[in-house]
Formats: sequence, structure tokens, C-alpha cells
Amino acid sequence: MCSKLSGLASSTSYLKARTRADYGYFLSYRTRWSDNDQYSHVNNAVYYHLFDSVINAYLIAHCDLSPQASDSIGLVVSSHCQFFSPLSFPDVLDLGLRVNHVGKSSVAYEVGVFREGGGEPAAVGGYTHVFVDRVSRKSSQMRDRTKEGLQRLFVERGSNRAVESKL
Amino acid sequence: MCSKLSGLASSTSYLKARTRADYGYFLSYRTRWSDNDQYSHVNNAVYYHLFDSVINAYLIAHCDLSPQASDSIGLVVSSHCQFFSPLSFPDVLDLGLRVNHVGKSSVAYEVGVFREGGGEPAAVGGYTHVFVDRVSRKSSQMRDRTKEGLQRLFVERGSNRAVESKL
Amino acid sequence: MCSKLSGLASSTSYLKARTRADYGYFLSYRTRWSDNDQYSHVNNAVYYHLFDSVINAYLIAHCDLSPQASDSIGLVVSSHCQFFSPLSFPDVLDLGLRVNHVGKSSVAYEVGVFREGGGEPAAVGGYTHVFVDRVSRKSSQMRDRTKEGLQRLFVERGSNRAVESKL
Amino acid sequence: MCSKLSGLASSTSYLKARTRADYGYFLSYRTRWSDNDQYSHVNNAVYYHLFDSVINAYLIAHCDLSPQASDSIGLVVSSHCQFFSPLSFPDVLDLGLRVNHVGKSSVAYEVGVFREGGGEPAAVGGYTHVFVDRVSRKSSQMRDRTKEGLQRLFVERGSNRAVESKL
Repeated sequence: MCSKLSGLASSTSYLKARTRADYGYFLSYRTRWSDNDQYSHVNNAVYYHLFDSVINAYLIAHCDLSPQASDSIGLVVSSHCQFFSPLSFPDVLDLGLRVNHVGKSSVAYEVGVFREGGGEPAAVGGYTHVFVDRVSRKSSQMRDRTKEGLQRLFVERGSNRAVESKL
Repeated sequence: MCSKLSGLASSTSYLKARTRADYGYFLSYRTRWSDNDQYSHVNNAVYYHLFDSVINAYLIAHCDLSPQASDSIGLVVSSHCQFFSPLSFPDVLDLGLRVNHVGKSSVAYEVGVFREGGGEPAAVGGYTHVFVDRVSRKSSQMRDRTKEGLQRLFVERGSNRAVESKL
Repeated sequence: MCSKLSGLASSTSYLKARTRADYGYFLSYRTRWSDNDQYSHVNNAVYYHLFDSVINAYLIAHCDLSPQASDSIGLVVSSHCQFFSPLSFPDVLDLGLRVNHVGKSSVAYEVGVFREGGGEPAAVGGYTHVFVDRVSRKSSQMRDRTKEGLQRLFVERGSNRAVESKL
Repeated sequence: MCSKLSGLASSTSYLKARTRADYGYFLSYRTRWSDNDQYSHVNNAVYYHLFDSVINAYLIAHCDLSPQASDSIGLVVSSHCQFFSPLSFPDVLDLGLRVNHVGKSSVAYEVGVFREGGGEPAAVGGYTHVFVDRVSRKSSQMRDRTKEGLQRLFVERGSNRAVESKL
């Protein structure tokens, strides 16, 4: 058997079959000129900038995060992405967010990247946050309001439906 | 007499008085987590990424530019920006575009950066494109359809109104 | 037994034990002001920009890649990173590169990120390139000179030594 | 009378004549894969990321700045750049820094961007910092040690020599 770490699956082919219904929270992002690298497609690293953006936007709007004031902040300990089809400026992207695991101090997010209105993901990836004390940077339990917000996007492994499709 | 500081025009105070009505074309951009630097505001260089984005989006949509196929492409020869008030992720920004000069092979763009729905610009800047042959990179006359598209955003110096307020 | 995909291990704890001797090619990169996000550490997505940089620098210098002219170019199909300790501007970073798998048309790279002169990696990650025809973007066999260059950095799984420690 | 184009000083031609001797402090930066945009040259906005990097590296090393602790921090109020010749990944760049004006609470920096070892600048630009109180973000006098560090790079207008050529 194959143990999995931080929402990272040993085989990731099921990710390609994700649909919009697998994600409970969406934000649209306009691509930027500099997102395209010299091969004229959105560069692989840019997807992680987008993951950061939808995840932190959700934490701020629904999990009581204030990046400059909260006692506890989320630091990334691992990240991963699978790329299925290219995207290119000036595409508009729909980013879908779900939560695959919520622990005492950690959370594994998954983000599906869709071309505006598209049904199949162009890429699926995500990362694991460990919540730490802002000053000491030691691991700390996440606050109740943070956990509640994250659990609203939690989807059981294998499930194809978000608990809530709209927030 | 005109005193200059570091290549900066002596007076740019009129830029602070710009309003949304001074720009003929708008696109909204969601800020990204990484736009904020460690002082927790959108970093000054990010504004130039946004200028690139709204300008090239306009060129593609209204001036017949195909970045991978057009014979003639626009290269930046100078750029500048004035910053009036800070912006911060997750702000949504409205970028207004106007054209201050159209020559045979060059065009001077100006971009006003507004917080979503705001009436006063947080920053105003822009750059000058010289159109060059894609392969030789020698200066070339811009195509008629490019020039026509740019002239639709041209505003006479001193004017406070875009020729067309919507595209 | 646990099958692995694209150099991505099901358990990644061995990555933390990497040392400089595990990598056969090094380049130093100065961090930039904008690499730090508002938590004052190098942002997670920036590591992928650095992976891209050391990998493509090696491909250009030692594998006959010309990004604007080669018939065959490498596109990223999956990527991953583990973060062990924070980095911060103005740190200088030593990036070590190794190759974990070379196939007919694909290659799995691994990059160790060290603080200048440091012996333990601050992060280890990498990605898988599939080589494709520049125009059709269909999978294509990599050229002999590309494969030869990559094989010089190939390290058998479990080995703790690069085949060549200097290039 | 002083004609202005788009807020750009009427004459910046003297900047093209800058040489390495006009700058008192140098750092080398390796370009990154993502610095090139789809026209295969270092994107115009990237130069401003580099300005930020050499300026803040100097402030930290020689002007007592601690970005996370100093009472007083520098915010950018205006910036500008002239581009003379293209650069491209994987070029290594030498960035030269000088100071053109030091006031009570503001400083105007100029940065010359040279290809490694090159004598003529590929671009010259810079920005003006206003020092503000970290918390209130109100303008504040810069500290003596900051001012002393900046004055070591000050060059009289018209001078072709840095006061000190090495730090």
C-alpha cells in the first residue's frame, strides 16, 4: 500500500478527471502579459502564484485571516501541480478551491485551474499550510474560525461534490 | 526653465488630478498574493506588469496584434509611474488606458490605476512603444489597423475626456 | 509497493537528507526584493522560478537548447517542492541540479536549494519535462545531444553521489 | 520652455552616455527564465524588480535598514526607466547604483543596468524613495546613518565620477 503525504497522491491521474463541481469556492483571475514565458504559454511557476492568491483570498474573506495582524499565519511546507493543457495571456481563468485535509495545525488545499467557463481543468495542484505563531514561527493550532471556514470546503477523498457549491 | 530630477519631468502634478473619465478603455485585474512586498503593499514594479497587461490586451482585442504572428511588435523604450496612494492584496483594480501620442512607429500610453469603483487614481504611469519588425527588430511603421485602434484612445493634451468612453 | 510518478515520491522524507554532494551542477542566484512576500520570506512560488532558471541554464549550456530556435522544447507536465527552512532577501542561494529519470521524450529533474555555502537544503523540488515539437507541440524524442547532457547529471535512485560533481 | 511627453522628461539622452564609472556600488544579478517575456527579451517591468533589489541590498548593507524592524522605511513615490538595448536570459547583469539627490526625507536613486562586463548601459532608470514611519506611514526624516550611507553614493549633477568607486 502507498501512504500519501499532505494531499499528494502517489498516482495523480484522477486529478485530470476533476470538474468544476469538485470545487466549492471560485475566483476569476485575468492573466497578465508577463505570465507567458518565451514559449508563449502561462509559465508553470505562475500557477503557484495563483494558488496563493485564491487560497489567501479565501482565508481573508472566510477564515478570519488578517495577514498583518493575525497571531497565527499559514506557511507552505509542500506544493505540487499537474499540468494538463496550456493556457495563455490574455485568457481569464476560473480558480476552484477545495480542502482535502484539515488537521489541528495543518490544511491541504487543492486548486483546479479552468479556462473561463471551461469544464475540464487545465491544471490541478495545491499545497499544504502549517499554521504557525507569527512571531516565533512555531507550529500552532489553527483558530476555531479558521478551521470552520476551511471545513466548509472540505471534501471527502473520492467524493465528487463539494459540501457547498457556493459561498 | 525646466528643472529635472533624475530624468523625471519637473511637473507631473496634473496626473494626480486624473479621473476615470480621462481614460477610454478599462479592464479589471484582481491583485495576487505575491503583488504585496514585505511592506504589505502592492510593489512598485507590479504596476508595470499591469500596464503591460492592459496595453497588450487592448492591442490584441482592438489593434489586430497577434503576439506570436504579427510582423510588427511593440517594444518598450521608456516607462514611468507616479504613486499616489498604496494598494494591497486582495484589492481588485480598475485599469484605465489612454493614448497621449501616436506617431508613425511609436505610441505613448498612459494608464490610470484605480481601486475598484474608486474615482481618484492610486497611481498613474505608462510607457512608449516603438513598433519594430519581429525578425530584424528594426523600427517599422505601425499597420493601419493598429494606428486606427490606438487613435480611438487618443486624447488631446489638456483634454479631460476620452474620445470614446466605452469600447 | 508504491509506484512513483515523475520523480515524485510517495514519501519524501529522504529529500530532507540531501546534501550538496547529491547534485552535479550548481549555479548561484541572488534573491530579489520582490521574492519576499508579506511574511518576509521567499515566497513558495519563487522556488519554481528558480528551478526553471537553473534547469534551462543547464539545457542551454550543456544540452544544445536554443529556446528560440530548437525544434524540440521541454514543457513542464508536473512539479513539486518540499520546504524545510525559510529563506529571505538578500540571501544568495546555491541551486544544485540532478536528473532522476531520463526517458525517450521526458526527463525528471530535482533541484536542491541551499543558502550560500550551506550544507543542508532549505528546499528540494523539481519537475518533469516532456520534450515536444516546437510547432505542433506533440511529444517528440529528445535529441541525442540533449539526452547526453542530461545523462551526465543522472543519479541512480538511492545513490548519494552525482556521477560527476563538477561540470 | 520645457515640452513634456507623457510625464517623461524632455531630454534623457545623457543617460545613454553613462558608463560604469558613473556608479559607485555594483551587484551582479543572474537573470531568470521568467524574466524573458514572449518576445524573448527581459521584460520592461523586471528592471524595476532589479532596481528594488540593488537599492534595498545597499540600504541593508550600508544604511542600517532592517526591513522588518526599522522605524523608518522607504516607499517609492515615482519611478522611470529608459531602455537602450535588449537583454535576455541567461545573461548575467551588473547593476550600478548612484544617488542623484538626498533630502531630509527623500532620496533619488539611479541604476545603470550593464550586461556582465559591458561598458555601455542597456538601460538606465531609478526611483525616488520617501522615508516614512513604519506604522503611521507619515513622512519622517531619514536617520543619520541612512543619510550618511546614501551620501557616499551621491554624485553631483554633471559629474562623471562617483565620489567613491568601491564600497
